[in-house]
Amino acid sequence: MTTDSQYLQSVLHSDIPLTREMGMEVIGWQNHCLHLQLPLAPNVNHKSTMFGGSLYCSAVLVGWGWLHLRLRELGIDDGHIVIQEGQINYPLPVTGTAVAHCEAPDDKTWERFLTMYQRRGRARLTLDTVVCNAGSDEPAVKFSGQYVLHR
Amino acid sequence: MTTDSQYLQSVLHSDIPLTREMGMEVIGWQNHCLHLQLPLAPNVNHKSTMFGGSLYCSAVLVGWGWLHLRLRELGIDDGHIVIQEGQINYPLPVTGTAVAHCEAPDDKTWERFLTMYQRRGRARLTLDTVVCNAGSDEPAVKFSGQYVLHR
Repeated sequence: MTTDSQYLQSVLHSDIPLTREMGMEVIGWQNHCLHLQLPLAPNVNHKSTMFGGSLYCSAVLVGWGWLHLRLRELGIDDGHIVIQEGQINYPLPVTGTAVAHCEAPDDKTWERFLTMYQRRGRARLTLDTVVCNAGSDEPAVKFSGQYVLHR
Repeated sequence: MTTDSQYLQSVLHSDIPLTREMGMEVIGWQNHCLHLQLPLAPNVNHKSTMFGGSLYCSAVLVGWGWLHLRLRELGIDDGHIVIQEGQINYPLPVTGTAVAHCEAPDDKTWERFLTMYQRRGRARLTLDTVVCNAGSDEPAVKFSGQYVLHR
């Protein structure tokens, strides 16, 4: 685990204690791509698959964590990140460990977001995240979140 | 707490163990309106308000619980309820106890849903739920969930 991953995991566990109960782990931060992991046992439902609420938490937090690490890299530490809206769908069940991924938005979107924040102290960014069964590339959950950064 | 509320709470706590960690309680089931409650402490975030993921869990489960209790009243016990899609927005922070509400959809929608399930063994129902700060009627969270009932 890199230093950035360890840092983010300690932020999540201390800021949002429920992530400890869920066993959430930050497993990678490379090339502006973030990966979180959730074990099945503490997040199981009545069908022995992963509870849709836990899957939502991993999907929303991988986006939140992505934005937190990117802003930190740029030395922007005066902002608060809030989730404003989210849309989720569940094409497949998760039957074991879940891995949530968030990649960078396209460069233009990202630059527009930063410019807006620097100008107005408030900007909105949509991040698309996915959750897969560990070892698979097929999305079990697709999430789109609208995050607001404000001073 | 009525017998139905006690029943649903025990179903939630045994089927989805994370609801125990979250302190989720079923507080009312009257006139086909269901109310769940979440305490702040186990669901807190870094801003001392309720974590958006916990709010999502209460919003999705109040709809799931509503459908579970309504089907049970009608003696329909051969179906599985699955969340397929959800849209959430967060107009206000929740600064203390959260109360999630789900009311019945309109009669026509409900009858169409039941007829479809009886004919095909599979039907889809949209339920709109809200989450408020305890003591307030103003929605802090608005959620729309597409639930599938299948044999």
